[in-house]
Amino acid sequence: MTALHDRTVEPQVTTGPIRGSHKVYIEGPDGLRVPVRRVELSNGEHHDVYDTSGPYTDDSATIDLRAGLPALRAPWVAEREPVNGAVTQLAYARAGTVTREMRYIAIREGVDVELVRSEVARGRAVIPANRNHPEAEPMIIGKKFLVKINANIGNSAVTSSIEEEVDKMVWATRWGADNVMDLSTGRDIHNTREWIIRNSPVPIGTVPIYQALEKVDSDPAKLTWEIYRDTVIEQCEQGVDYMTVHAGVLLRYVPLTAKRLTGIVSRGGSIMAAWCLAHHRESFLYTHFEDLCDLLRTYDVTFSLGDGLRPGSINDANDDAQLAELRTLGELTQIARAHDVQVMIEGPGHIPMHKIEENVRLEQQWCDEAPFYTLGPLTTDIAPGYDHITSAIGAATIAKAGTAMLCYVTPKEHLGLPNRDDVKTGVITYKIAAHAADLAKEHPRAQSRDDALSQARFEFRWLDQFHLSLDPDTALAFHDETLPAEPAKTAHFCSMCGPKFCSMKITQDVRDYAEEHGLTSVEAIEAGMDEKSTDFIEHGGRVYLPIADQRTPGHAPPES
Amino acid sequence: MTALHDRTVEPQVTTGPIRGSHKVYIEGPDGLRVPVRRVELSNGEHHDVYDTSGPYTDDSATIDLRAGLPALRAPWVAEREPVNGAVTQLAYARAGTVTREMRYIAIREGVDVELVRSEVARGRAVIPANRNHPEAEPMIIGKKFLVKINANIGNSAVTSSIEEEVDKMVWATRWGADNVMDLSTGRDIHNTREWIIRNSPVPIGTVPIYQALEKVDSDPAKLTWEIYRDTVIEQCEQGVDYMTVHAGVLLRYVPLTAKRLTGIVSRGGSIMAAWCLAHHRESFLYTHFEDLCDLLRTYDVTFSLGDGLRPGSINDANDDAQLAELRTLGELTQIARAHDVQVMIEGPGHIPMHKIEENVRLEQQWCDEAPFYTLGPLTTDIAPGYDHITSAIGAATIAKAGTAMLCYVTPKEHLGLPNRDDVKTGVITYKIAAHAADLAKEHPRAQSRDDALSQARFEFRWLDQFHLSLDPDTALAFHDETLPAEPAKTAHFCSMCGPKFCSMKITQDVRDYAEEHGLTSVEAIEAGMDEKSTDFIEHGGRVYLPIADQRTPGHAPPES
Repeated sequence: MTALHDRTVEPQVTTGPIRGSHKVYIEGPDGLRVPVRRVELSNGEHHDVYDTSGPYTDDSATIDLRAGLPALRAPWVAEREPVNGAVTQLAYARAGTVTREMRYIAIREGVDVELVRSEVARGRAVIPANRNHPEAEPMIIGKKFLVKINANIGNSAVTSSIEEEVDKMVWATRWGADNVMDLSTGRDIHNTREWIIRNSPVPIGTVPIYQALEKVDSDPAKLTWEIYRDTVIEQCEQGVDYMTVHAGVLLRYVPLTAKRLTGIVSRGGSIMAAWCLAHHRESFLYTHFEDLCDLLRTYDVTFSLGDGLRPGSINDANDDAQLAELRTLGELTQIARAHDVQVMIEGPGHIPMHKIEENVRLEQQWCDEAPFYTLGPLTTDIAPGYDHITSAIGAATIAKAGTAMLCYVTPKEHLGLPNRDDVKTGVITYKIAAHAADLAKEHPRAQSRDDALSQARFEFRWLDQFHLSLDPDTALAFHDETLPAEPAKTAHFCSMCGPKFCSMKITQDVRDYAEEHGLTSVEAIEAGMDEKSTDFIEHGGRVYLPIADQRTPGHAPPES
Repeated sequence: MTALHDRTVEPQVTTGPIRGSHKVYIEGPDGLRVPVRRVELSNGEHHDVYDTSGPYTDDSATIDLRAGLPALRAPWVAEREPVNGAVTQLAYARAGTVTREMRYIAIREGVDVELVRSEVARGRAVIPANRNHPEAEPMIIGKKFLVKINANIGNSAVTSSIEEEVDKMVWATRWGADNVMDLSTGRDIHNTREWIIRNSPVPIGTVPIYQALEKVDSDPAKLTWEIYRDTVIEQCEQGVDYMTVHAGVLLRYVPLTAKRLTGIVSRGGSIMAAWCLAHHRESFLYTHFEDLCDLLRTYDVTFSLGDGLRPGSINDANDDAQLAELRTLGELTQIARAHDVQVMIEGPGHIPMHKIEENVRLEQQWCDEAPFYTLGPLTTDIAPGYDHITSAIGAATIAKAGTAMLCYVTPKEHLGLPNRDDVKTGVITYKIAAHAADLAKEHPRAQSRDDALSQARFEFRWLDQFHLSLDPDTALAFHDETLPAEPAKTAHFCSMCGPKFCSMKITQDVRDYAEEHGLTSVEAIEAGMDEKSTDFIEHGGRVYLPIADQRTPGHAPPES
């Protein structure tokens, strides 16, 4: 890969392990080394967590941002022959070929490699992995795997710099971003992207129409297929792993948005709508969709079919424009797959809770179970400044229903561009939503981290509790605000109850009692308890004895 | 009411209207004046929102913390005769009597007063309103009304002061807390509570066992019915509106918690469990429950039947101990109602998303639809420092399913006592959860605020957008971080897209186009469009025409 020679750029990124953990590699077949973040616990145990952070958190790695990350996948890509003229993970999966990316992912997810291959072959999962982005560590997006999250970064015409965006990318992956989208729209789009891709351990997505628009002085009407195509080729060559394409914005759908409260809020959607209106015909994204498939197939770039007509307010949720476009995305999915190109589908946006499930149901039905990738959705419009939260509610809900990847929303949504702190807040919030959904879907590996943390909490292993959390730095800082002294980290009390009384201490007494009296199972309790407790079971051992039996004499039992 | 003569206490509280709004009063029958917060918009319209903040946000009010708030309800209470020996809202409702509190609430909620009366009579809603807390503005908790939120405050043996807690109470109601619980456990419990109640515009709840425990040097075994009873009487006299009573912690349920990952985490629950173990008999809360009913009835204090055995981790959710106690709470509900005492039921805690609905279903069934009042629930254990978010997901989900009031969780949960900023974050986060549920339940008045804000956003009325939000100060500050200049408040662009291109501007072009071509309804679009658009409908006017029809020549339609 090309080195980064722009000497005016001096990025600084955060390196070193996350507090209380260090990186280890699980060895797999063929020399595969899959990273995990190992949390060492004070009781001698350890807990491994999925790790998106790349070499930056590896103390033994040498980081050189001008050289970029090591090209992990370069030999894998180089040694492979095309199948049926295609080099995509979909083509290999369909041909029954297990790629190294699939083996890597199987270890990473803790599943059988055949599940990985078959889900990709079926189109229910995608592995975004441009041949020209060998630095990225393979990952999978599909409803049978862990729910993933995407972090958006990117400068605009108004603000931000290359340095800031590279730093944000590394920062976002440090805290758990599985994918990063570079949505830059200002100057230096190409250069910014080059720095990001060469240094990114996760797949990078873009919206090529943004850069194409810069080339025509921001006038959508001047866009042409040729300009767009050249932009896509440029980005494919650089190594973009997936591209948002708003090919479902058809001319006849555009007027459906006229009566909306908030019209078209997708930037890509409104660019394409403007083009359609100006030329009074279907967009080049739609008419040249198969040409686009041929391009993306050559590099194994994944389609992220954009929802250009997604609702921008609660009022506009699940309306005709949104659903008409979704159905068209389903048609485009079949075309892409016929070309052996991987596809995921973008979803909204702003949706009240009771209309969320319908989005997943229709997407799964119309788009033949292609992975759904949603922006939130925000479940109310009334909390600008807190839209990471309004949308975390929607994100957890939609992921529970089968969405495979969640695009984060930061506290700055609708108000400004996220800074470093906002990026972290957005990532942690979306890790919460994704994990809550993994638990709700009863993912076999999800609950072990909750259990380990809760056990540490119960046993007053404060540092273990912090280290097992999504954000050890914040957990520690919040604890220290109230009880900064070092002994408080091992004290058997907390600031809520104080030293004289503690509910968790009393629970230990309950355990001692149960142990002593042989009441260690529900059966034992219901069957008899010990000799002292016969007064509780003289009513026939019923669990719910009539309440009047043991109450103050002279009072009648309840009337109803 | 008594004046507050403790000259060592010097509380300072925040007064004055919230940015962009001012208080107005809706005039009702019998001289009722119901406060709303009026947001004046730049387009000449205004939007009124439910207002919990009391006189503190009224520029014309004189605030004297030593005198307390005006005794709004004192004449209403004084003029009423008991019905069937009782003075509770439940007794009046059952007798067909509409109280002034009910009329006030009907105006506040925008519903018919008969709905208020009948829901209270049925036990499906409660109006927490101690006769000795006439300063509070009447409000209702029930699933047919707006979802309410509760904020916990209170000092502990380790930290905090009376001044801080009074300030937190006013601060919490400023941002939307419908109820406040004073959970103080340290010194000055009585005094702290007196300052809070006399100055609170919202109902105040407590857990009397905390104060009782202080009287016996924090040794649960030394607690007696007499000590507890005297504490309850003291708090009833002061004006506490609802009390958490953990009367469902039965001796035979205690061993059910021994095998839990995190045992008993409720402070009240573990106090009662410790008592039961020490004395090997049912607690005085259970055996004297009818005596307690007689006390609470005298003042019209509402029971909040505590879930002392709620789960403290995802692992323990919906287990035998939790559900056994819930069934007992159902029995106690019937007893309380037989005594004309209002009842709500407390709920968990830590519950994964897929087990949340079952909690509401069982509570509604076993407790005869008594209002459910839940703490979160947290939907994962792995994010200390962000438990306002882990629990907002659960809170919105459980409220959508029928929970009537949500007890907030702050970012400091599990780590320390919340400070002022944490209280605000907790309140705003829970207003989001409650409102998301109101939208999901299709509450007739809920969506108008979303619509007003979204319209302002679409029309680039930036200040209106901020003023309509739950937290105008934060929305404004976030916007100004990126675009501080004053003209940016009226600019027709934002920092995300910049001045040259804006999706919302393009939407206006769509509207102009639709207007010009007569495409102002789905029918018009499907039926014909204008003469220029016949090329789009020559395929028979189908909305979803075969994709190959308009694609690059030479490519085949999709295979499947």
